[in-house]
Amino acid sequence: MGDHPTLFGTEKFEPEEYQNIANFCSTPIPETELTSRKGNGNMNFAYIEGWKSINVANEAFGFNGWSSSIKILEVDFDEMISPGRYMISVTAIVRVTLKNGTYHEDVGMGSGDGPRAAALEKAKKEAVTDSLKRVLRLFGDAFGNYLYDKDTNREVSKSITASKTAAKPAAQQASKPAPQQQQ
Amino acid sequence: MGDHPTLFGTEKFEPEEYQNIANFCSTPIPETELTSRKGNGNMNFAYIEGWKSINVANEAFGFNGWSSSIKILEVDFDEMISPGRYMISVTAIVRVTLKNGTYHEDVGMGSGDGPRAAALEKAKKEAVTDSLKRVLRLFGDAFGNYLYDKDTNREVSKSITASKTAAKPAAQQASKPAPQQQQ
Amino acid sequence: MGDHPTLFGTEKFEPEEYQNIANFCSTPIPETELTSRKGNGNMNFAYIEGWKSINVANEAFGFNGWSSSIKILEVDFDEMISPGRYMISVTAIVRVTLKNGTYHEDVGMGSGDGPRAAALEKAKKEAVTDSLKRVLRLFGDAFGNYLYDKDTNREVSKSITASKTAAKPAAQQASKPAPQQQQ
Amino acid sequence: MGDHPTLFGTEKFEPEEYQNIANFCSTPIPETELTSRKGNGNMNFAYIEGWKSINVANEAFGFNGWSSSIKILEVDFDEMISPGRYMISVTAIVRVTLKNGTYHEDVGMGSGDGPRAAALEKAKKEAVTDSLKRVLRLFGDAFGNYLYDKDTNREVSKSITASKTAAKPAAQQASKPAPQQQQ
Amino acid sequence: MGDHPTLFGTEKFEPEEYQNIANFCSTPIPETELTSRKGNGNMNFAYIEGWKSINVANEAFGFNGWSSSIKILEVDFDEMISPGRYMISVTAIVRVTLKNGTYHEDVGMGSGDGPRAAALEKAKKEAVTDSLKRVLRLFGDAFGNYLYDKDTNREVSKSITASKTAAKPAAQQASKPAPQQQQ
Amino acid sequence: MGDHPTLFGTEKFEPEEYQNIANFCSTPIPETELTSRKGNGNMNFAYIEGWKSINVANEAFGFNGWSSSIKILEVDFDEMISPGRYMISVTAIVRVTLKNGTYHEDVGMGSGDGPRAAALEKAKKEAVTDSLKRVLRLFGDAFGNYLYDKDTNREVSKSITASKTAAKPAAQQASKPAPQQQQ
Amino acid sequence: MGDHPTLFGTEKFEPEEYQNIANFCSTPIPETELTSRKGNGNMNFAYIEGWKSINVANEAFGFNGWSSSIKILEVDFDEMISPGRYMISVTAIVRVTLKNGTYHEDVGMGSGDGPRAAALEKAKKEAVTDSLKRVLRLFGDAFGNYLYDKDTNREVSKSITASKTAAKPAAQQASKPAPQQQQ
Amino acid sequence: MGDHPTLFGTEKFEPEEYQNIANFCSTPIPETELTSRKGNGNMNFAYIEGWKSINVANEAFGFNGWSSSIKILEVDFDEMISPGRYMISVTAIVRVTLKNGTYHEDVGMGSGDGPRAAALEKAKKEAVTDSLKRVLRLFGDAFGNYLYDKDTNREVSKSITASKTAAKPAAQQASKPAPQQQQ
Amino acid sequence: MGDHPTLFGTEKFEPEEYQNIANFCSTPIPETELTSRKGNGNMNFAYIEGWKSINVANEAFGFNGWSSSIKILEVDFDEMISPGRYMISVTAIVRVTLKNGTYHEDVGMGSGDGPRAAALEKAKKEAVTDSLKRVLRLFGDAFGNYLYDKDTNREVSKSITASKTAAKPAAQQASKPAPQQQQ
Amino acid sequence: MGDHPTLFGTEKFEPEEYQNIANFCSTPIPETELTSRKGNGNMNFAYIEGWKSINVANEAFGFNGWSSSIKILEVDFDEMISPGRYMISVTAIVRVTLKNGTYHEDVGMGSGDGPRAAALEKAKKEAVTDSLKRVLRLFGDAFGNYLYDKDTNREVSKSITASKTAAKPAAQQASKPAPQQQQ
Amino acid sequence: MGDHPTLFGTEKFEPEEYQNIANFCSTPIPETELTSRKGNGNMNFAYIEGWKSINVANEAFGFNGWSSSIKILEVDFDEMISPGRYMISVTAIVRVTLKNGTYHEDVGMGSGDGPRAAALEKAKKEAVTDSLKRVLRLFGDAFGNYLYDKDTNREVSKSITASKTAAKPAAQQASKPAPQQQQ
Repeated sequence: MGDHPTLFGTEKFEPEEYQNIANFCSTPIPETELTSRKGNGNMNFAYIEGWKSINVANEAFGFNGWSSSIKILEVDFDEMISPGRYMISVTAIVRVTLKNGTYHEDVGMGSGDGPRAAALEKAKKEAVTDSLKRVLRLFGDAFGNYLYDKDTNREVSKSITASKTAAKPAAQQASKPAPQQQQ
Repeated sequence: MGDHPTLFGTEKFEPEEYQNIANFCSTPIPETELTSRKGNGNMNFAYIEGWKSINVANEAFGFNGWSSSIKILEVDFDEMISPGRYMISVTAIVRVTLKNGTYHEDVGMGSGDGPRAAALEKAKKEAVTDSLKRVLRLFGDAFGNYLYDKDTNREVSKSITASKTAAKPAAQQASKPAPQQQQ
Repeated sequence: MGDHPTLFGTEKFEPEEYQNIANFCSTPIPETELTSRKGNGNMNFAYIEGWKSINVANEAFGFNGWSSSIKILEVDFDEMISPGRYMISVTAIVRVTLKNGTYHEDVGMGSGDGPRAAALEKAKKEAVTDSLKRVLRLFGDAFGNYLYDKDTNREVSKSITASKTAAKPAAQQASKPAPQQQQ
Repeated sequence: MGDHPTLFGTEKFEPEEYQNIANFCSTPIPETELTSRKGNGNMNFAYIEGWKSINVANEAFGFNGWSSSIKILEVDFDEMISPGRYMISVTAIVRVTLKNGTYHEDVGMGSGDGPRAAALEKAKKEAVTDSLKRVLRLFGDAFGNYLYDKDTNREVSKSITASKTAAKPAAQQASKPAPQQQQ
Repeated sequence: MGDHPTLFGTEKFEPEEYQNIANFCSTPIPETELTSRKGNGNMNFAYIEGWKSINVANEAFGFNGWSSSIKILEVDFDEMISPGRYMISVTAIVRVTLKNGTYHEDVGMGSGDGPRAAALEKAKKEAVTDSLKRVLRLFGDAFGNYLYDKDTNREVSKSITASKTAAKPAAQQASKPAPQQQQ
Repeated sequence: MGDHPTLFGTEKFEPEEYQNIANFCSTPIPETELTSRKGNGNMNFAYIEGWKSINVANEAFGFNGWSSSIKILEVDFDEMISPGRYMISVTAIVRVTLKNGTYHEDVGMGSGDGPRAAALEKAKKEAVTDSLKRVLRLFGDAFGNYLYDKDTNREVSKSITASKTAAKPAAQQASKPAPQQQQ
Repeated sequence: MGDHPTLFGTEKFEPEEYQNIANFCSTPIPETELTSRKGNGNMNFAYIEGWKSINVANEAFGFNGWSSSIKILEVDFDEMISPGRYMISVTAIVRVTLKNGTYHEDVGMGSGDGPRAAALEKAKKEAVTDSLKRVLRLFGDAFGNYLYDKDTNREVSKSITASKTAAKPAAQQASKPAPQQQQ
Repeated sequence: MGDHPTLFGTEKFEPEEYQNIANFCSTPIPETELTSRKGNGNMNFAYIEGWKSINVANEAFGFNGWSSSIKILEVDFDEMISPGRYMISVTAIVRVTLKNGTYHEDVGMGSGDGPRAAALEKAKKEAVTDSLKRVLRLFGDAFGNYLYDKDTNREVSKSITASKTAAKPAAQQASKPAPQQQQ
Repeated sequence: MGDHPTLFGTEKFEPEEYQNIANFCSTPIPETELTSRKGNGNMNFAYIEGWKSINVANEAFGFNGWSSSIKILEVDFDEMISPGRYMISVTAIVRVTLKNGTYHEDVGMGSGDGPRAAALEKAKKEAVTDSLKRVLRLFGDAFGNYLYDKDTNREVSKSITASKTAAKPAAQQASKPAPQQQQ
Repeated sequence: MGDHPTLFGTEKFEPEEYQNIANFCSTPIPETELTSRKGNGNMNFAYIEGWKSINVANEAFGFNGWSSSIKILEVDFDEMISPGRYMISVTAIVRVTLKNGTYHEDVGMGSGDGPRAAALEKAKKEAVTDSLKRVLRLFGDAFGNYLYDKDTNREVSKSITASKTAAKPAAQQASKPAPQQQQ
Repeated sequence: MGDHPTLFGTEKFEPEEYQNIANFCSTPIPETELTSRKGNGNMNFAYIEGWKSINVANEAFGFNGWSSSIKILEVDFDEMISPGRYMISVTAIVRVTLKNGTYHEDVGMGSGDGPRAAALEKAKKEAVTDSLKRVLRLFGDAFGNYLYDKDTNREVSKSITASKTAAKPAAQQASKPAPQQQQ
């Protein structure tokens, strides 16, 4: 459905437009836009939230400059571990495509623990969002790719924890070159 | 059925049109258009209702500027928990496409608890609407994307609860730049 | 069958035509065209009837300006609850397409309770009509989208109940801007 | 078979032609062309017969201006209720397409009660005809769409019963604007 | 096999040609061309024979102006009711297409009672012919569509029974306007 | 295999050519070309033999003006009725296509009674030939369509039986207008 | 494999070429080219051998003017009737296509009786050759179509038996008009 | 794989080229190029070897003028008849295509008797080569088609046996007209 | 989804652009960008991390100059080895495509050991990243292809271990020729 | 994957180029390039090695003038004949295509006897190489086609055994006409 | 995914470019670039390593001049031979394509012996690399094709073992003609 030829996927990036977006994508997202949480071994772990990745994508490529679809969404296991309580794991593969047809895919995982419907909901939504985020970071450090370097992540994470009360969305990415207006 | 080439999906956004819609989409929907309900832990949770998302989409893209289809609609489980009472969970994946072919997909969940037919109806409709809403928010804050930030949501939610008697649809989005007329 | 390229789906909306239809679609259908019935909790519930939605679509888009197809029609369950009496639930997904290729889909549900053939007939027809109506309302308030706001629905419903003897089809939508003649 | 591109489906409605057909379709079929029968609760129920719908379609769109196909024809159940007597229910989905490619689909039901072959024959033919009629009425009141309004139906039905000896086919639709000649 | 594009299906009806065929199709076939047999309740029932429908189609559309194919031919049941005697019911769906691509489909039924091979042969051939006839009548009264009106059928049937010794094929349709020569 | 576009199926009938073939096809094949055999009830039954139908087709349309293919060839039943003796029934559906793409299909039946291989051979070949003949007669009386009229058949049959020693192939169809040379 | 568009199937028959081949095909193959064998009831039966049909086709259409493919080759039954001795029956459907795309198909049967591998080999090869011969005879009497007339066959058969020592391939078809050179 | 349009299959035979190849193909391969072996009933049987057929094809059509593919290669049976000794029968269908797209297919059989791997190897290779040879002979006597005439074969076979020490490949086909150089 | 023609895959590399990228790709990534870990036999093993490979690809080809997709992602085994502890192995095949359509694929493996959901997540993400890295190195030494030489790897590994405190991302690849700006 | 239209398969052989390659292909490969081994009955058997066939193909058609693909690679049987020792037989079908689209296919067999992995490896690789060699020899004696003549093979084999110490690759085919440079 | 037409596969080799690459491919890779290991019978065996083959391909065809994909990757067997130790064998078929669409495929094998995940990883990666190497050598001696000659391999192997301390990558292929710059 909807798989016949469209304008999207056949649109060229103009030279100046290319340069602006390339600069934007390779500029690391500032720490103030990141979040941290406890990960394995009780260590803090810095990451970009899903909603933030989406806003960065809209800023980088324009609302009509990127597309996303769910290629795979499947339940890995769905087990009752005690009466009324379920452990569920879900795998998603999302594909992101740019206006000239460039695309990436990556896997995302979600899990849920609790009443079955609630656990399913959490696991499925989490998997799709996780996959979307992982695909977007393939476009560069503006989507947090550099956070996959463990040493860097540790430092960023400490810094975030220290300044958790800082920057809010309104001020987002003020320090980054803005991509030229998209059409 | 109906999958041969159409005009829809091949239509260009003109520069001024692009700018108007981009501004519209990145402007957060005002609190007066939102709703709040009790979520996990008895906390208030702010969200945009389905019918509102639809109206925002029609305002942003025009009645002939966005399409939607149901890629997946499946029952996760359908269990009788006591005579005549069923617990049902449903997963939906909706795809939204813009006039130039840009598309997004996301997962939605619905659940029902009661007589089987009624529970099914609630779960299926809820899943489709939930998925539609989640896809639309990928276009930006006008569809409530910023509400996925927990801190922001908490503040908005409090504010809504406080002013629940306020604004009605007629006045909707008066404070936002209107997208240029679509054709 | 019939899936090769057609004129339908490739026809442009002209600017004036667009504006007329957009106005028509965003203008809420007047209460006099609505119906109300008892819903959950014995509350009145306002809604638009199927035949009315069809007439509104023909008025908005022209007899050759919208198409509809049944993507899915399946029996959810078909159980004999006592000798000769069946409970049946049916799910339908209808797709509506406009002349430029814009499309929407939504789910509809129908149920039947009685002799098997009659219950099946009621459930299937109800599901298809319900789905068609839900898809059409995605085009805006002219198809009753605003009735999904609970507060609004409650008020409209009261008003209908009060004036149930009022307006007939002939006078329908006299107060709304008519879309330009379609071709 | 026969699904390669044809002229049918790619033919334009000219403005005057459009207007004539639109008027024809939105003009309610006169009561003299309708029939009534006992329905649920022993109430009279007004409807349009299948052969009449076909003639109206030929009058509205021309013999080469509309097409129909059977998408689904399946037996819902086929049960022997006593030796040599069967209860059979059949579901059909017919699709009607106009010369510019506009299409509609709807479900039809048929049932049979008697010797198996005869019951099957009645159920299958009834289902197809019922579906065809339901699809055609989506084009407007000339195909009886207004009869789905219960109040209207009740009045029409009474009127028919009163004048059952009246008008014959020859005089059919004399009072309606005739659509321009089709080619 | 043979489903690649052909000339057939892409040929236009010229205005005069259209008018001639339209007149031909809407003119009821004269009683002298019809047959009657005993139907349910020992009542006479008027109908058009298969071979006659074929000749009318060749007269109306030309030998190269209409096509037919069998979409479905399936045995409903095939039961031995006593040693060496079988009851068999068969369903057929035939599709008729005109030179511009217009098409119709309808269901036909056939049954056989006797030795298995003979019963199968009768049922299958009867089903295909029945379906072909039912499809052709969708083109209008020249193919007997008006006989589906019960009152009319009763009168025609009486008339036929009264004059059974009358008209032969040579004189067929002398009173009808002949469609312009087809090419 | 071989289903890509070919010249065959896209060739036009020229006006004079059309008229000649139309006349040829609607002229009943003379009795001298027919055969008769005992049918049900020990009555004589007139028919056209397969090889004759083929020669008539070659005469009417030219060796390169018609094509035929076997869509379905399936064994209905294959039963041993006594040691080494089998009853076999076979169904065939043949499709005949003309040079402009016009096509028809019909069902044919064959049966065999004897050693298994011989019975299969007879049944399969008979079914294909029967189907081919039935399809060809859809083109008109030159292929014996008028013999499906029972009264006519009875008269023809008597006449054949009376003059069985008459006309041989060399003189075939001398009395019919010959279709213009085909290319 | 090899099913993309080719020159073969799209080549036109020129008028003179058509006439030569049409004459060739409708001229009965002379008795001297035929063979006879004992058939049912110990009667002689005249037929054309496979290798001869192939040579006639090459003469009529040219080595690059006809193609053949095996659509179906399947074993009907493969039974051991005594240790080491098998009865095997095989069905083939061959399709012959001419350079303009004209095609025919017919069924052929082969059987074998003996050691399994030898019986399979005989049955399969016989079935393919039988099918090829039956398809070719659809092009006319040059391929022996007239031998399907029982009376004619009996006479030809007697004549062959009488002159079995006569004509050899070198002199083949000297008395027939040769089709124009093919390219 | 590799099934998209190629030059091969779309190349025309020029008139002179056609004539040369046609002459070559219809000239019987000389006895000196044939081989004979014992067949059924201890009779000598003349045939063309596979490698020779291939060389004749390359000579007739050029190395780039004919293609071959294996449509079917399947084991009919694979039975252990004593410990370590297997009887295996294999069926192959090869398709040969000429540069203008002309194609033929025929069946070939191979069998093996011995250790399983060796028997499989012999049967499979034999079947493919047998099929290739049988297809090639459809192009005429240059590929040994005339050897399928039993009387001719008997005479050729005697002659070969008598002169077995004669001609070698170098001198091959010296007496035949060579087809024009292919490109 | 999204598989219709796009601009991506059809874009040419200009000569100078080609030379810059070719130089970039064949220049070994400097040791300072690599990492080392313990491998088999407690030996140090030098490798490029996933996030680094991604950044190198963006630098080499531009954010819109390379695409990646997951062709296969499957669980090899998923075994509980002790209560609540699972061993899981996953295989991925990723495909990377350049803007002119050049593509490579390679296999990647991931494994996990622990609670089931966590082990699955680690194994799946590891497999996809491993596969992506292995595909990218097919483009040359800039992606670490030279590290597959065991002797070289050993030396590099020692060197890394010795200078682990050295270079950070900011200084990355300063010593390599930068590919010309991509568009 | 990669099956869309390519330049390869659509490239013409120029006249001189054709003649050079045709000469090359029909010139038997000299004995000095062949190998011999013991075959059935302890007889020496002459053959061309796989790597040699590949080099001859590159010499004849150029590195970019021939393609090869594996259509089928399947294990015939895989049996343990004693603990740890397996007998394995594998069948391969390779297809070779030339630059104008000419193609050939043939079957190849491989077998292995030993530890399972090693036996599989030998059998699979042997089967593919055997198939490739057999396909290539269809292009003529330069690929050893003449070695399939048993008498010739015996003589060549003796000669090879006698001079086994002779020619090395460097001197390969010095005596053959070299095909014109390919592009 | 990504299978629509691309530039890659449709690019021509220019004459000079062809000659350079052809020379490069037919020049045997120098011994200094090869490796040797113990093979069957404890004999040394010379071969080219995977990473080296990749670099040679990039040098010969350019980074954007060759593509590779995995057609098949399947586990032949996966057996536990003692607790925690597995024997695994894997088969891969890789396809390499050049910029004009020339392609080759060959089979590769990999095996692993140890803990299951590690054995799988080794076997799968080894199989893919082995297959890639075997495909590349089809392009000529630059990829080590000549090493498949046993005598040559033995000599090369001895030579390598003798000079194992010699040449490193930097000096690679200095003695070979470099292919012209690719674009």
